[in-house]
Formats: sequence, structure tokens, C-alpha cells
Amino acid sequence: MTNDVRTVEWTGDGLRLLDQTVLPGRVEYVVVRDVGALVDAIRRLVVRGAPALGVTGAFGVAIAVRQAAREGWDDAGRDAAITRVREARPTAVNLAAGVDRALPFVAKGADAVAAEAQALLDEDVRGNHAIGAFGADWILRRSADRPLRVLTHCNAGALATAGWGTALGVIREMHDRGRVEIVYADETRPLLQGARLTAWELDQAGIPCLVQADGAAPSTILRGLADVAVIGADRIAANGDTANKIGSVGVALACHAAGIPLVVAAPWSTVDLALADGGGIPIEERPAGEITTWGGIRTVPDRVGAFNPAFDVTPARLVTALVTETGVLEVSAGVTPRQRAAEKP
Amino acid sequence: MTNDVRTVEWTGDGLRLLDQTVLPGRVEYVVVRDVGALVDAIRRLVVRGAPALGVTGAFGVAIAVRQAAREGWDDAGRDAAITRVREARPTAVNLAAGVDRALPFVAKGADAVAAEAQALLDEDVRGNHAIGAFGADWILRRSADRPLRVLTHCNAGALATAGWGTALGVIREMHDRGRVEIVYADETRPLLQGARLTAWELDQAGIPCLVQADGAAPSTILRGLADVAVIGADRIAANGDTANKIGSVGVALACHAAGIPLVVAAPWSTVDLALADGGGIPIEERPAGEITTWGGIRTVPDRVGAFNPAFDVTPARLVTALVTETGVLEVSAGVTPRQRAAEKP
Repeated sequence: MTNDVRTVEWTGDGLRLLDQTVLPGRVEYVVVRDVGALVDAIRRLVVRGAPALGVTGAFGVAIAVRQAAREGWDDAGRDAAITRVREARPTAVNLAAGVDRALPFVAKGADAVAAEAQALLDEDVRGNHAIGAFGADWILRRSADRPLRVLTHCNAGALATAGWGTALGVIREMHDRGRVEIVYADETRPLLQGARLTAWELDQAGIPCLVQADGAAPSTILRGLADVAVIGADRIAANGDTANKIGSVGVALACHAAGIPLVVAAPWSTVDLALADGGGIPIEERPAGEITTWGGIRTVPDRVGAFNPAFDVTPARLVTALVTETGVLEVSAGVTPRQRAAEKP
Repeated sequence: MTNDVRTVEWTGDGLRLLDQTVLPGRVEYVVVRDVGALVDAIRRLVVRGAPALGVTGAFGVAIAVRQAAREGWDDAGRDAAITRVREARPTAVNLAAGVDRALPFVAKGADAVAAEAQALLDEDVRGNHAIGAFGADWILRRSADRPLRVLTHCNAGALATAGWGTALGVIREMHDRGRVEIVYADETRPLLQGARLTAWELDQAGIPCLVQADGAAPSTILRGLADVAVIGADRIAANGDTANKIGSVGVALACHAAGIPLVVAAPWSTVDLALADGGGIPIEERPAGEITTWGGIRTVPDRVGAFNPAFDVTPARLVTALVTETGVLEVSAGVTPRQRAAEKP
């Protein structure tokens, strides 16, 4: 259960981020000590993934408090800076939630805020291990007694979290139990988080992996080459509708058609009970240039634009299991996050 | 009905090919007057697409006959050169079929061969126009009376044929009738035929177009942003199962879930009645490097490989309409190519 990937780390006076834009070619870190640099790093996807963004948001409040003290801002200036962090990306509820969790500590100063952010980080890692165990238990209980072929989309790994990972946490746990034959990692256009990040994490962990084009995923599933698909989530509505990286719903449709489970692995904090269903989830549209250019060269004719939604919404009826640190909800069988929340004391 | 794309054109003493390897950055032509240059152009994918290769093969025989006369080859030398053309891409059956069609004219000289090749070219273009008209009629009869939002995958356009196109022929015809609002063109990883070729053709024709990641297609369809999807085909089994570029079946699953038609447009010659169903269609696996590197840079970690099937198979139940130059078959409603063939005199 070793995991050397340190996605987000507090240095005492700033935040050290593993620069996910240059992986797998280079392993480099960006240290941010002011809000402008942090917002830029979030927007450029130096750090990405819903849980990692939550932790980053919480530490971002500490950065804002430190910068306010250093530069003599008044409370309004400090609060405006915190709001900039909170709104750096719209779809991931975790970023705002991480900021909100740190807010009560602002009056106590940056160190208190950072301590709360660190508590959130530690909880995230613990939660991921719980997700991994619940997810592996659920999948293996339903599967033939052999190593499984697992498909995943985008990166819901240690790089998307404070460590270990959600979807990849489940896969890491299955691997630790000797039950992974191969992972098909969708490359995940346009930013290639699957090719660059998931493949890197799996290789680091010694888990066999093949990268495929996103368009290949439905076919791989329909041909019977995968036993289960495991993905992360960016926001989950009360009914179980799940926003995740663009391309996820194609995987979900294929799983349904092939009769294999689609497992969504995410911290409970990804659930947004204020949203009745996925219709209310805002879908971030990212710049056309992510599609139209590659390495500075246009691949699309000059006068032609692009449509670049970053996320899609998988309807609850296609989510076989939602795995959180509190257990497994069989969503497509009718067990919704709304119901689970109502059952809690 | 204008169409300025001349994929393959006989110059009187050679073959002028639109160089598809440098589109959309540059519009350049390669003129070949000897067999060696032609074989090289075919292998480098200067010309690609099954119907375009058929026409190229037929003209290739004329090139061989001219070169033999010019350089004083005997019949054996000439026939060996023709065989080289025929086998330049061993998997492309249309190339061999085009060569075979021209062979009976060899004894009559290069001009007679070129005339037969031109007849094949003209038939292909006429067939595409018929496909376009049948397809547009069928789609528009079933649609609201407004310009439609159309989704397509890969390139089944003028660049893949002698001109006009199959799937893009349908879209061109709809555009000529004032009934295209926008075309969503999937970029089509790994070789980006959608981003590079389809977007270029649509832009040249003045048809509004947005390129999107392949993973976005199911979501675009499920969000209600497309009224119909139109794709080409590489091989169609007797029951209507359809092999097309990898990613097509994800489009098909989404069309089914959203209740919009999936239209497959292809010449009747694409139907292989010897295959009972799609299970018999061989799926070509192309080199991993198409996935793992981009512009000479590895995007996947060095030790990680790729799975790169070039095609997938869409089951007949998801093919709403198959449009050929002989009319429309509503495959998902039970009308199969096998039945249609049996009805013919």
C-alpha cells in the first residue's frame, strides 16, 4: 500500500503542487505563495481532480490569509481573494467545499487554516483507502475468481486526490489482492489525463496497463475485453446522476449494453444534495484551443472552432455502484445518495 | 451541388492526388507519372479511403501502361508493375478491385484504361450524389422543419471517395437544401481524420462546423444538441452489423439512448453478403505508436503500451438507416442487406 505520489503538500509558507501538465515526461513541482499564482495553477490544471482541488482550496485560504497579512490587505480584500480561489473552476463542488471548510479558521490566522487543510488532506487519504476497500470488496464479490480486466477513464488517482486515489484507489486495492489482470486506460482527450497521468501512476505502482483512444472504450467493453469499469466523479446529484470527465457517459452506456458494472468511486463530499438531479450541474466549457492545437500546431483548419465541454453527466440509471468512504450505494437499483443521507443519524 | 475537392484527377499523362497528409495546414497536390511514385503515395496515405483507392488503382493501371510504353518494358514488366499497384495496400480490397476493373483494357492502350478508370470515378461520384439525396430525403422527412444539428465521426467525405462523399455527401445535400445548422465533427483519434479532413471539407463547402473530442460525442447527443448522426462504413455484414472507424459504436449507443437516428451512408459495394454478421469482420489493430506518441513526443510513459483497434462494429439493432445508392434500409426495424439483396432481380 505504498504511495509516493505527493500531489499537494503544504511547505509551511506555501503550497507545493506536483505539476500535472508536464507528466509523464518530467516530474516537477510548482510552489505557490500567492492567490494569483494559485488561481493560475488551478486553471492551467497544474493541480486537478475533485478531491485534490478540495484540499487545494482549503490550503488556498491559508495562502490568502498569509498574503493579506504580508501585503496589508483589509478583510474585504482578503475575502475577495478567497472568493477568487473558490471560483477558479466551476464544476468541481469540492473546490468550493474545501474553501468553505477552512473559512471558520480565518480569524485564527494562516497556521490554523493550514492545520485544518492538512486535516482535510489526511481525511482524504484515509477516505480513499476506505473507498478502495469498499470498492474492491463489492467488485470482487460479484466477479469470477480470477484477475479482472478493468477499464478506467481520465485520472481519479493519487494525482486527483491528496493521495492513493478514488477509482485508482479501488484498482490499487484490487491489485494488492492479486486481482488485476490489465487496466485499459482511456487516453482522455483533450488533455490526455489518462495517457499521461493514469498510465504513469499505474506504471509506478507496477499495475499492467494499456492506453487506448477514448473512442475505443465502448468497443473494448462490448467486445467482452473488460469485466468492470471504475471511474471517479466531479459532482454527484441527490438522485445519483454523476458528472465526470467528458467521455464517461459513453463508457457508462457501453457498460449497460454489455451488462458489466459501472462503478463510480468518489468521496461523499462529491455528493451535492442541493441538486435534485444532473440537470442542475454546470458543465464547464474549456478553451477551443485544447482541441484545435497540439504542441503549438493547429490540427483543425484555421476558420473552424471547437466544442470543448470538460464534463458529461451519466444518468443514475447507468451507475451500478457508487462507492464512497461510507460504503456502497447500488444507484441503478434505486439506492440514491438522497436516501442514504436521509438514513444517517 | 458545387464540390471543389478533387481527391483524384487524371491529367492526361498522370494522376493528380490531393495530398491528405498535409491537410489542413497546406493544400498541395502530388502528380504521379510512374508506378514507383504512385505506390509510395498510396503507402504514405497521400490518398486514402476505400472508394478513392479503387479509382486510384484503376488509374494506376493506365500509369503502368504509359510507363511501359515510354520505357520500353515488355508485357511481363508491365504486368509486374500493375501487380505492385494492386498490392500497395494489401488490406484495401477496393484498390485491387479498381485495378481488376481496368485490366481488360490494357491491350487497348493507356487512353482506354484511363477512360475506364474515369468511368469508375464518375460512377463513384454519381453514386455518392444518389446516397446524398436518399439520405437527405430520409432524414428530412423525419425531422422538424428547421436546419438540423448533425454529428459525424471520422471522414466519409470527398477526400475518402472520388468526390462529394458518403456521410458528408448526405450532409452536403442537406446543406444545399438549407437544412444544416451545425455539424459536430468528432476529431477521431488517433489520426484525427475528423479534425483535419472533415473539418477542412466542411469549411471549404461553407458548412458550419465544430470539432469535438471523440469522448464528447455521446454527451453532445444525450444533451439534445444533435438531431441526427451520419457516419460512413468500412464493411457491412449481411444482417446490417457495421464496421466503421473506432468510436462509431459509442455514437450509436448514444443515438439509441437519446432516440435520434443513426444513419450509415456507404456504397452498396461496402456490403459483404458473405459475412452473416459483424462477428466475422476482422478488426485491424494498428501500431501502438499512433496512440503513445504525438508529433514525435511520447504522451504515454515509456514502459506503457497501447491498444489500438482501428475499427469497431455497431450492431444492426443500433443502425437506424443504411443509405446506399440503391435506397434506404431501415436496419434496426428489421430490414437487412441480406433481405434487400434477395429481393433484387
